[in-house]
Amino acid sequence: MQIYADNAHHKALQAAIKPWVLHGTEPQVPQRPPHRTGSCRQLQARQDIAACLGCTAREIYFTSGGSEADNQALRSAAWYGAQNGKKHIISTAIEHHAILHTLKQLEEEGFSVTLLEVDENGRVTPEQVAAAIRPDTCLVSVMFANNEIGTIEPIAGIGAVCREKGVLFHTDAVQAAGHLAIHVQGMHIDMLSLSAHKFCGPKGVGALYVRRDVPLRSLICGGGQERGKRAGTENLPAIVGMAAAFREACAAIPAHAAYVSALRDRLIAGLSRIPHSTLNGDPQQRLPGNVHFCFEGVEGESLLLLLDAKGICASSGSACSSGSLDPSHVLLAIGRPREAAHGSLRLTLSEENTSEEVDYMLQVIPEVVFYLRKLSPVWRDMEGGRIPHVI
Amino acid sequence: MQIYADNAHHKALQAAIKPWVLHGTEPQVPQRPPHRTGSCRQLQARQDIAACLGCTAREIYFTSGGSEADNQALRSAAWYGAQNGKKHIISTAIEHHAILHTLKQLEEEGFSVTLLEVDENGRVTPEQVAAAIRPDTCLVSVMFANNEIGTIEPIAGIGAVCREKGVLFHTDAVQAAGHLAIHVQGMHIDMLSLSAHKFCGPKGVGALYVRRDVPLRSLICGGGQERGKRAGTENLPAIVGMAAAFREACAAIPAHAAYVSALRDRLIAGLSRIPHSTLNGDPQQRLPGNVHFCFEGVEGESLLLLLDAKGICASSGSACSSGSLDPSHVLLAIGRPREAAHGSLRLTLSEENTSEEVDYMLQVIPEVVFYLRKLSPVWRDMEGGRIPHVI
Repeated sequence: MQIYADNAHHKALQAAIKPWVLHGTEPQVPQRPPHRTGSCRQLQARQDIAACLGCTAREIYFTSGGSEADNQALRSAAWYGAQNGKKHIISTAIEHHAILHTLKQLEEEGFSVTLLEVDENGRVTPEQVAAAIRPDTCLVSVMFANNEIGTIEPIAGIGAVCREKGVLFHTDAVQAAGHLAIHVQGMHIDMLSLSAHKFCGPKGVGALYVRRDVPLRSLICGGGQERGKRAGTENLPAIVGMAAAFREACAAIPAHAAYVSALRDRLIAGLSRIPHSTLNGDPQQRLPGNVHFCFEGVEGESLLLLLDAKGICASSGSACSSGSLDPSHVLLAIGRPREAAHGSLRLTLSEENTSEEVDYMLQVIPEVVFYLRKLSPVWRDMEGGRIPHVI
Repeated sequence: MQIYADNAHHKALQAAIKPWVLHGTEPQVPQRPPHRTGSCRQLQARQDIAACLGCTAREIYFTSGGSEADNQALRSAAWYGAQNGKKHIISTAIEHHAILHTLKQLEEEGFSVTLLEVDENGRVTPEQVAAAIRPDTCLVSVMFANNEIGTIEPIAGIGAVCREKGVLFHTDAVQAAGHLAIHVQGMHIDMLSLSAHKFCGPKGVGALYVRRDVPLRSLICGGGQERGKRAGTENLPAIVGMAAAFREACAAIPAHAAYVSALRDRLIAGLSRIPHSTLNGDPQQRLPGNVHFCFEGVEGESLLLLLDAKGICASSGSACSSGSLDPSHVLLAIGRPREAAHGSLRLTLSEENTSEEVDYMLQVIPEVVFYLRKLSPVWRDMEGGRIPHVI
């Protein structure tokens, strides 16, 4: 008989079949690999992710991604808030649409929502949060780092304010997880969303951290998976993949963040020398790989097409809004005019990029910007057709 | 320059870079595979799934699985119903928990729910549905086939009743899709849920069919994916895998259903000869691979342990409730007493099973049942220790 040494269930099974005497011999078990280790692997994945966030495995719930985690966190907090007569939620104007659209739905359902304004670098302060908290506030949700302009918010400070005032604090850490050090206990975070494919894990899986004392309501209900808080057959391959990717990413944060932010700062310094260009987001408090500029007189979509032809994959806004022609709500919130918001460029660097690639970008991007400006009757003469060397 | 012949976007790109004259030559594009074909593959997957269901690609929405699809269908129909002052929903007592638990939540939120009773084989009739429809009924949701006892419901008849009365009709086809022929138009189905891993596709992906005239509300909101109806980065590998698996499964339905149901009927005939055994579910209108019995005097969990030791993987109820000790709501609904519901056995056959394996099961299962009955003081003497030959 096959023995599964590491599995309590199979030890019990072994004990149960001891009195088997029908044939007078031990039963013949067809050869097959152990098939009940899925739950062990899932527990290990939960423990790995918890260790990276500074919490316990019981506080991790697997979801289908960051959007679902955000939706569940907000809906759950709103539902429990309403039970206690608290129907006010505080967030910021630059959140991801998974937050903003859910808040809009909640507003339609009778909740009151305060969206804090951000400064010209996209930052809110703990003081703003403290001032906005009311007796009926049931939730504060502030993103860890912005997905477009890369600004990192003062999460530990906001967490301390919320904890002191006894208000639940959620952070959408989809952009930050795996790229910045996170410690949910130290930062007084009550709920945190993350998404695997943002740190090279598989698509279609994410997680929601919920502090053990915080009640959680299902968004998707049905079977008893995830301790009854998220129904649906567990996507075990994706869960295991996410944990492996997160472990690797978190272990590499010190080295990668230093390397990537050095590339980033050189790229930012170079692109800043293009006339009529503006860096978006905080110069210091920003994601290691995020470079985001507005170039006046340039149409974002044309810029992307030409850069694509030169082998540079870039984005004009957030990936989630790439089908939309509206200017980014984040750029409008930091005070960029509508026209400038249309000419924005987001470049995301990783540890796989090289210094030579930054050189190449610093050669190509100014050329493309000037080429496009030359096509515009307004800009043609102002620039005089000269392309400055920016490297 | 690389040309992407099959992609309109890249044709546009090609046109856009024609006037590129900065270097006097065509720009050097680093060699790389086309990276924008994801949307083409996703469209192809949508078309493939639509073709198998008898609808158009625009009517397919990808989700993270069957539970999410069920939740979204019910919540969306309820929301639009409430907008029109219709807050009554009809379903059955034997639905999956993804339906029943969502209905319970909706009841708490002020909806009125009628759960139709089923007959001793687990069937409802179109007449029952017709009689239950009220002027304020906004939705009928009846599963295509039951996940425990395998009973197939008269979906086309129920669809016709609902269409005639102008009531929205949803069916949870998670167990049926890929195993039974489905034609959403012919069967007058307005919404249908399916899950990929039930037809050998990957885990973590499913789909919701929604007829084009039916409004759909987001369950997970945020980015504009799935035409604004399901936010979150698309799980493209899983979507492509699901479409491939569904195409294969649907093409094989005639051959597989005939082969598997022949195995099933032989297994059912054999197990029926065990004294004090009861087949659960409809003898004819049942899933090709479903065999579900109650054996009096036998505890389900012990049965599973011993069968596992003999290389037979079985279940005592539904996979989603396997952590629970409550007797199945489906078995209680078809009139089985609580004790019998505890001694149930579900075997699921597929085209990969063989006639020899059915022989093996017909040899082993009666032995195990009698072995367990011999351990019980009540049954020991009644059975007299003799194991009948059932093959």
